[in-house]
Amino acid sequence: MFSVNINFLRLPGNYLFSTIAGKVNEYKQANPDKSLISLGIGDVTRPLPPAVISALHSAVDEMADASTFKGYAPDGGYAFLREAISKKDYAPKGVDISPDEIFVGDGAKSDSGNIQEIFSPNAKIAVTDPVYPVYVDSNAIAGRVGFFDEIEEKWDNLIYMPCTADNCFAPQLPGDKPDVIYLCFPNNPTGSTIPKSELQEWVDYANTIGALIIYDAAYEAYISSENVAHSIFECEGAKTCAIEIRSFSKNAGFTGTRLGFTVIPKELEYNGVKLRDLWARRQGTKFNGAPYIIQKAGEAVYSDQGQKEVRELVEYYMENARLIRETLDGMGYTVSGGIDAPYIWMKTPEGVDSWGFFDRLLTEANVVGTPGSGFGPSGEGYFRLTAFGTHENTKEALERIKRL
Amino acid sequence: MFSVNINFLRLPGNYLFSTIAGKVNEYKQANPDKSLISLGIGDVTRPLPPAVISALHSAVDEMADASTFKGYAPDGGYAFLREAISKKDYAPKGVDISPDEIFVGDGAKSDSGNIQEIFSPNAKIAVTDPVYPVYVDSNAIAGRVGFFDEIEEKWDNLIYMPCTADNCFAPQLPGDKPDVIYLCFPNNPTGSTIPKSELQEWVDYANTIGALIIYDAAYEAYISSENVAHSIFECEGAKTCAIEIRSFSKNAGFTGTRLGFTVIPKELEYNGVKLRDLWARRQGTKFNGAPYIIQKAGEAVYSDQGQKEVRELVEYYMENARLIRETLDGMGYTVSGGIDAPYIWMKTPEGVDSWGFFDRLLTEANVVGTPGSGFGPSGEGYFRLTAFGTHENTKEALERIKRL
Repeated sequence: MFSVNINFLRLPGNYLFSTIAGKVNEYKQANPDKSLISLGIGDVTRPLPPAVISALHSAVDEMADASTFKGYAPDGGYAFLREAISKKDYAPKGVDISPDEIFVGDGAKSDSGNIQEIFSPNAKIAVTDPVYPVYVDSNAIAGRVGFFDEIEEKWDNLIYMPCTADNCFAPQLPGDKPDVIYLCFPNNPTGSTIPKSELQEWVDYANTIGALIIYDAAYEAYISSENVAHSIFECEGAKTCAIEIRSFSKNAGFTGTRLGFTVIPKELEYNGVKLRDLWARRQGTKFNGAPYIIQKAGEAVYSDQGQKEVRELVEYYMENARLIRETLDGMGYTVSGGIDAPYIWMKTPEGVDSWGFFDRLLTEANVVGTPGSGFGPSGEGYFRLTAFGTHENTKEALERIKRL
Repeated sequence: MFSVNINFLRLPGNYLFSTIAGKVNEYKQANPDKSLISLGIGDVTRPLPPAVISALHSAVDEMADASTFKGYAPDGGYAFLREAISKKDYAPKGVDISPDEIFVGDGAKSDSGNIQEIFSPNAKIAVTDPVYPVYVDSNAIAGRVGFFDEIEEKWDNLIYMPCTADNCFAPQLPGDKPDVIYLCFPNNPTGSTIPKSELQEWVDYANTIGALIIYDAAYEAYISSENVAHSIFECEGAKTCAIEIRSFSKNAGFTGTRLGFTVIPKELEYNGVKLRDLWARRQGTKFNGAPYIIQKAGEAVYSDQGQKEVRELVEYYMENARLIRETLDGMGYTVSGGIDAPYIWMKTPEGVDSWGFFDRLLTEANVVGTPGSGFGPSGEGYFRLTAFGTHENTKEALERIKRL
């Protein structure tokens, strides 16, 4: 008789952003006259850059003509895109990543959720706390993190690396030895970064203990500080211990267009088995490539015009980040992030917990943010605001928060 | 220390179509002057229908303007597409499937590969033999089908349901009781179908033993026979035992555009747990929706103009199917399929096995097909040709086969 994967039943509640969407919809239905501003989910609001729009239109035209029509894409992505990534994202940083170490996918969420399939079923996982929920939930569904303790709000077989004001939101090397370490810099949700020298320490640590680092670099376009690495492969030895995941969502506005990629160096092996071969097999079996027209849109991001337009997009959002950070700071809130990242991480007011602050902002200011505790127990007492709104909405949201 | 999912190492060789692509590339490089015709992989060749092209262009324009720009899509797909599917694919067949039982994804390959995540880790799986490799490989990666016996060319914990000329390529109810049964009609690779009355027997069987049917209906648009069901939900009781997977690839030419959907009725439960909730959670955690512009393209398939154009596409390919079937039959080959399906399943000549015939067609006729044995041990001695070529190439391929 059929039965289900009981790991699903161990997951606490809903995926964080589905819960928020539910609460927001409920409020909207009860208060149809209120106009909500969302600085919650990390979703962009600016239209796609003109270079991307133009590439999309031409690619659509190619699909209309038998002589240029494209069927199934090559496994791992079209050469034109993988070569552009190699040449424009990595070579300029002095990093040699060849096109066949790059796997084009439909976004960093899918790749960061699916990458755990290549790990041993009993791999011991370490995550920062707070953390992007996908790393934890995908491992929970695979049965790797044990049981969820409702009181501690923790999985009992998962290594948590707390990131709080005490350590400037930078994780410390864990006491227990992990097999796999998820790192994300610039960080979601805290907006923090670490200097390249500290990232090098993580790489050295992973190489020493034989751990694998899953490095989520979805926000690298937001880095302006000189001493912060854009890629983990800028660190010496990273090719023998790290997988890097990137996205077109936050630099080029592809949240609803879906494109990303994962880099697995050929040097990354376990007992002679190349991890890139396992991922190639995983993708070859369960994925059929990103759409051709979307891959052409991705290629356009790397044109001179595309690069210029993407920089303008990033600057637009970073202007919001600056405004949120400075305004909240001026109002007496304790804020961090927002320098090399589009997220502002604020302390909730004394005596108000994360969901309490969420409810207060929603109902009294009609502003939607994300409760820090949704990202893990050490996120309690914090709140995330994103810089992805329009200037107008961001300003208006801050005015509303001022009036609280 | 990090180690890998060893189930990957148990997979025999490469994904079938990657192996074929490798062989073809090797031949091409050694014989750059030869012009190959592929009737191998089930990839379409006609351009996207005009209604779809026009919807794509308008959706791209929407993404260029802040007031109509779309970020993250709703989990499970946009309402406009789910409603169109419900109204146009199901209601006309007398089947009541509501939009929230429909999950839009990036194609039937992903969904049919990922659906096993909601099964118990030790679910006993039954597949037809020959079979679309994704059902087997995705369960193998999850460790559900045991070890691969290189001599028998079989997994030792998988129920095989042979489909050969002896049973008109229709599987019989298995001797061992499965927990999950994968069925695909019209069938890939054999092109066979079963009458609705026989499909009803499978539904009754599944309900009796408490099994789940994963029903792959990717080729339903090719059905012309009156007594063949387009959806398993046309059978009584299917909502308590079946999940249906569909695709836009083969009707509307979306192989390189990527869109499909999975239907999980609310009635489908295990101990009070709705399977649709598990899949919603799976997709909510590890998938971020199909691109907005692609979903708009999917919607256009359901417009009156889109429906007309899709019917023309299907007729175009079915004309190839007729030609292949009749020509090969006239040449004395034993052929089946090609009536309600775009696949022709032929017996290889006496004394020539599937890969032998593949090599012979490749090197002597410069025609690429798919060896039946690649789909499972009962496929040995068979060969698959697809109707997805152009008329011209299909005719030319048949001429070349005649000259063998």
